[in-house]
Amino acid sequence: MRVLVALGGNALLRRGQRPDADLQQDNVCLAAASLAELAREHELIITHGNGPQVGILALESASDPNLTRPYPFDTLGAQTQGMIGYWMLQALQNALPGRQVIAMINQTLVSAVDPAFDDPTKFVGQVYDRAEAERLAAENGWTVKPDGPHWRRVVPSPHPQRVVETRLIRGLIRQGVVVVCAGGGGIPVIRNEKGRLQGIEAVIDKDLTGSMLAEALECDAFLVLTDVPRVMRDFGTPGQREIRHTTPHELRGLDFPAGSMGPKVEAACRFVETTGDMAAIGRLDQARQILEGTAGTIVTPGATWPLASTL
Amino acid sequence: MRVLVALGGNALLRRGQRPDADLQQDNVCLAAASLAELAREHELIITHGNGPQVGILALESASDPNLTRPYPFDTLGAQTQGMIGYWMLQALQNALPGRQVIAMINQTLVSAVDPAFDDPTKFVGQVYDRAEAERLAAENGWTVKPDGPHWRRVVPSPHPQRVVETRLIRGLIRQGVVVVCAGGGGIPVIRNEKGRLQGIEAVIDKDLTGSMLAEALECDAFLVLTDVPRVMRDFGTPGQREIRHTTPHELRGLDFPAGSMGPKVEAACRFVETTGDMAAIGRLDQARQILEGTAGTIVTPGATWPLASTL
Repeated sequence: MRVLVALGGNALLRRGQRPDADLQQDNVCLAAASLAELAREHELIITHGNGPQVGILALESASDPNLTRPYPFDTLGAQTQGMIGYWMLQALQNALPGRQVIAMINQTLVSAVDPAFDDPTKFVGQVYDRAEAERLAAENGWTVKPDGPHWRRVVPSPHPQRVVETRLIRGLIRQGVVVVCAGGGGIPVIRNEKGRLQGIEAVIDKDLTGSMLAEALECDAFLVLTDVPRVMRDFGTPGQREIRHTTPHELRGLDFPAGSMGPKVEAACRFVETTGDMAAIGRLDQARQILEGTAGTIVTPGATWPLASTL
Repeated sequence: MRVLVALGGNALLRRGQRPDADLQQDNVCLAAASLAELAREHELIITHGNGPQVGILALESASDPNLTRPYPFDTLGAQTQGMIGYWMLQALQNALPGRQVIAMINQTLVSAVDPAFDDPTKFVGQVYDRAEAERLAAENGWTVKPDGPHWRRVVPSPHPQRVVETRLIRGLIRQGVVVVCAGGGGIPVIRNEKGRLQGIEAVIDKDLTGSMLAEALECDAFLVLTDVPRVMRDFGTPGQREIRHTTPHELRGLDFPAGSMGPKVEAACRFVETTGDMAAIGRLDQARQILEGTAGTIVTPGATWPLASTL
């Protein structure tokens, strides 16, 4: 099978953990052990989040006295692709001796007229009081919005259209290479009025990029791996229960938190609706079992999907 | 021909220029115009320096209150590969429509018993007074040395042995892909006692990595592109004059500054001595003319090399 895995940011940096390089590398090594199990039996493409990491580099850049302007989000995203890509590359090479692994820099094309540009919604960077936020907004051309009692910068989160280097990724997979790509959802770029690629200040949801890329690469399965074992129905209520097997139709009838499970569910539904193939959401350390249908929440077009008997 | 270009760090960030992202990207676009000329006629592999960029990220990391320890140089080098790789990737894609370009994350293997580890010599990061330098050294396990009137951290600069992903690079070139790789000389790694790849605190000379990689890829030419038109004999004296065509034997009889022209000359000599093919040092915007033998300093095994008649 050809399998695309989207790895949550918390697989790299646990909640509350300091973002030191060695701690993150230890986490990446654990992740690589699970991913290597998949790679031994399947063609494997890995994407990963970068939320905490890009936030840290953005803060560092904003307080760097050598810079006239902080680095924009396309450049910061590229830095995290290099850093996390290196950690993943090395960990996978160590876990898969004799196997070729590549970590690539990737851009994700979005539409210059995506409605997200008119209404930025994604909070990034630190919190300010209102006066300071508005001063910084005027100075740097930011959009700022209230986030609870504080104010923060918001950037657009446009819809991913295509990973620019998709053809190269497909060629590498066909040669048996394990591909780490499109980190952080890919570096956001548009085609400008001259038809040239150009970075933009935006962040792209990594699960939506993963879903779109899995579709473009004609993957047989799209796995969203995180730190929860299954999607929960009625999460947080006394009647909450795990969903083992479901369909996009059923999932779309339920409510999920916008910031966490929502985008994962949306990404899984889109892949299944578009391709008729299997998506799943579950724990990173159960990757193999999820693919076998014995762990995680499996999403298929209907209840009669081949694996359903085992669920 | 198969050509490997090693691009000086000052092609990306001019002396005295602020390290803002947009200024560096403008420089990269100029560089890409020259490189695209080569890519239209030849197989092209591009490596680049990262000295100023890694210095900036190291300072940012050292003053980040969220970190227990600053990021080590392998991780910082990976960040610069992502950032500069992205800029080069986009600029080359725009300059070469219809052509495939890749920017990869690469590690460069060095020997764990390289003598450089016993005597670190490469200054990195900011300057301190002696007391502060020694306090930081004790706290972080650094080696510090006097640099003029100040003290600075030094890290080892071991000899590059192999780019870990060389086989992948060769496969991509054969498919006609323009490859941006081994940025900053490659992320420094050793094989540890368990045989696993492991990052180390070191910096690798990008020209030496370029020379070694050009040899491993069996390139026909190795070009060191910078901002001076030719290597000078007796540089800085009234009798200084440009060298148009020379041999490793002749070059090794001359003296060059250790910090700037020295490593470029050494890298060029090694490539020519090992392969019998052509190396050259010259201006980035004359890349095509250098390859034709009408600009730059051309280094060949002997004076009878085919192009010599045109020099």
